[in-house]
Amino acid sequence: MALFVQKYGGTSVGSAERIKNVARRVAKYYAAGHELIVVVSAMSGETNRLIALAKEIQANPDPRELDVMVSTGEQVTIALLAMALKEINIKAKSYTGSQVRILTDSAHTKARILKIDEERIRADLKAGNVVVVAGFQGIDEANNITTLGRGGSDTTGVALAAALKADECQIYTDVDGIYTTDPRIVPEARRLKTITFEEMLEMASLGSKVLQIRSVEFAGKYKVKLRVLSSFEEEGEGTLITFEEDKNNMEQAVISGIAFNRDEAKITILGVPDHPGIAYQILGPVADANIDVDMIIQNVGHDGTTDFSFTVNRGEFANTMNILKNKILPHIGARDIIGGDKIAKVSVVGVGMRSHAGIASKMFRVLAEEGINIQMITTSEIKISVVVDEKYMELAVRVLHKAFDLDQEL
Amino acid sequence: MALFVQKYGGTSVGSAERIKNVARRVAKYYAAGHELIVVVSAMSGETNRLIALAKEIQANPDPRELDVMVSTGEQVTIALLAMALKEINIKAKSYTGSQVRILTDSAHTKARILKIDEERIRADLKAGNVVVVAGFQGIDEANNITTLGRGGSDTTGVALAAALKADECQIYTDVDGIYTTDPRIVPEARRLKTITFEEMLEMASLGSKVLQIRSVEFAGKYKVKLRVLSSFEEEGEGTLITFEEDKNNMEQAVISGIAFNRDEAKITILGVPDHPGIAYQILGPVADANIDVDMIIQNVGHDGTTDFSFTVNRGEFANTMNILKNKILPHIGARDIIGGDKIAKVSVVGVGMRSHAGIASKMFRVLAEEGINIQMITTSEIKISVVVDEKYMELAVRVLHKAFDLDQEL
Repeated sequence: MALFVQKYGGTSVGSAERIKNVARRVAKYYAAGHELIVVVSAMSGETNRLIALAKEIQANPDPRELDVMVSTGEQVTIALLAMALKEINIKAKSYTGSQVRILTDSAHTKARILKIDEERIRADLKAGNVVVVAGFQGIDEANNITTLGRGGSDTTGVALAAALKADECQIYTDVDGIYTTDPRIVPEARRLKTITFEEMLEMASLGSKVLQIRSVEFAGKYKVKLRVLSSFEEEGEGTLITFEEDKNNMEQAVISGIAFNRDEAKITILGVPDHPGIAYQILGPVADANIDVDMIIQNVGHDGTTDFSFTVNRGEFANTMNILKNKILPHIGARDIIGGDKIAKVSVVGVGMRSHAGIASKMFRVLAEEGINIQMITTSEIKISVVVDEKYMELAVRVLHKAFDLDQEL
Repeated sequence: MALFVQKYGGTSVGSAERIKNVARRVAKYYAAGHELIVVVSAMSGETNRLIALAKEIQANPDPRELDVMVSTGEQVTIALLAMALKEINIKAKSYTGSQVRILTDSAHTKARILKIDEERIRADLKAGNVVVVAGFQGIDEANNITTLGRGGSDTTGVALAAALKADECQIYTDVDGIYTTDPRIVPEARRLKTITFEEMLEMASLGSKVLQIRSVEFAGKYKVKLRVLSSFEEEGEGTLITFEEDKNNMEQAVISGIAFNRDEAKITILGVPDHPGIAYQILGPVADANIDVDMIIQNVGHDGTTDFSFTVNRGEFANTMNILKNKILPHIGARDIIGGDKIAKVSVVGVGMRSHAGIASKMFRVLAEEGINIQMITTSEIKISVVVDEKYMELAVRVLHKAFDLDQEL
């Protein structure tokens, strides 16, 4: 007998029929004697419907009130799934984030989980209940409803798995695992049987939208076994996310996948005085506005100045430019600020690249051969990312996928 | 400076535009220096949409889970109204029933309020906030979400007014007050400037759907000044619900209104052994099933048996018949059970009838003159109700309205 946390996304619970399917799948595990905590998202489309409604009232909806509103999406789904389970004679009980209680900080619309009370869930499991929990939401110290931000249901699943020491956290989604890249762009893309946490982290943050990055960090930190599975297929083992030590024994690929992201915008501040503290002066106000920064690039300066570049989510581009122009530029004596949102980021990811020289040069050569100009480069231990003109994104992904033999079964 | 509780129903908050209108009305009171607690229902149609969704999963949705689901309706509205207020620069804060906390018993879908924590609301009011509260919902001791049943938002409003000792509880609705009867049936129907609590109670329970009966009981018990107003008209004083002593000085009508209800069904148990405890034996199991009984009639028996009749909500007719046939009939030795749901109840209501003889005979004469057969009769201090064939309902209401001069201004 094992304890599983299963998480079903919006598409998997997108209609009454699909919710009944989820109930049947849960019932199979239940019949096999397992304990089950099921985390669900809002029905697909619901969150967007609610946000659109809020925007009819306020162009920039108040974050506290937006959380009150948007959190109703999952609240509807937990009730429906609990009903569907009861309908097939399985004891079930639904919990909102507040009822669990999933304590978060007070950063509305992007809160972080601080603590989960597990006693009540444990008692319900012991009493033979399937426990159905609303993903994506929590409550702060002052009892205000919070949400974890888009994709936060994965984080809820992993956090519950960690708090209750579950044997596995299964993320059911509309794909049957993690692929070497998006099969819509490269039809030869292959499902990976395993992927390391580190690779997954790089893949997720770079735009492979299967799992939310924070949930992967969480899983890594608390050593939660995480598996991505299809909610539409009866069989299939999906992709298991492993620690690196396991991985090295199983697959020896240098590169595991090609990730990409067209949701970013780049900003460059030209002629920044090159003295200590300048990076903080620039990014401090951006961070204070809760804008996430992805790539950050600063090259060596000359003539006492340097150019400072970074990328943000495309939706935050205008906002970030405003902050920079009004709050930062006047104080730091930089020459100018330029930016653009017609960019895409393409990355090669793989733990194997640590021990293999020449990945970067191969990547740059392959892109050059296709006439694709590289606008920015960053590297980490296990990935190399480049920013290119948005229009070359698909081409770049395809040629890199082929160049690194990702279409070949090992 | 006064403290007002204002309650807006589903129609009043049925769209973004209407919610903005509510915000503007609240703003007027706020600008005049008043403190405001605003209770809102779900947007019109939303509760039915949610119930229909639940029924796609379970024909008889689990009550605990149904409450989890249905309570999201008001949760969306409180957020939208708080946003609309902030948009016009009024400090506002939304509360779900759980956040307030409105403690109820555990009777899901028809819970009763036990206690309201008012400290947090009071602090928010003191800090200059308009406090927006979700109607219709609460939470039980074990932190399960409960709902008060249809129309429960009125009860929430009155309960908050009582707990916070508000100066007036204003119920905004789609009518501009309480009428002598439904103007759709009798165009000459007149708005009452005042009505007593007792009359209102009889009117509400008999089908004048302006106010939910429990809210009127509550208001009477805690001496909350209750006013019904239109949310669509800028001016208008609506109808004030008063205690009888006030009323006698203001309006001297014998009859205040004609109420009616076609949502009932009648059930008669024939040949019931006429001995003590029989009424309890019949109605005990019905009450245990949480079925509300309205009229109860038992006439003197003969040959040691009697006939026992009562009415229930039409939606509970089949259920009640089942209970009677399976649980009751076998034990009490009655002859048979008959029933019908093609009935309507028509009532004349007025505190004045206490001191005026002849109201009943006049009512029966007027109906007889139209050839309307009376199937059942019950009376109370301030009302006389008859059950007639459903098809005569409108006719009965019209002739009674005229016979008691309700179309005449006093």
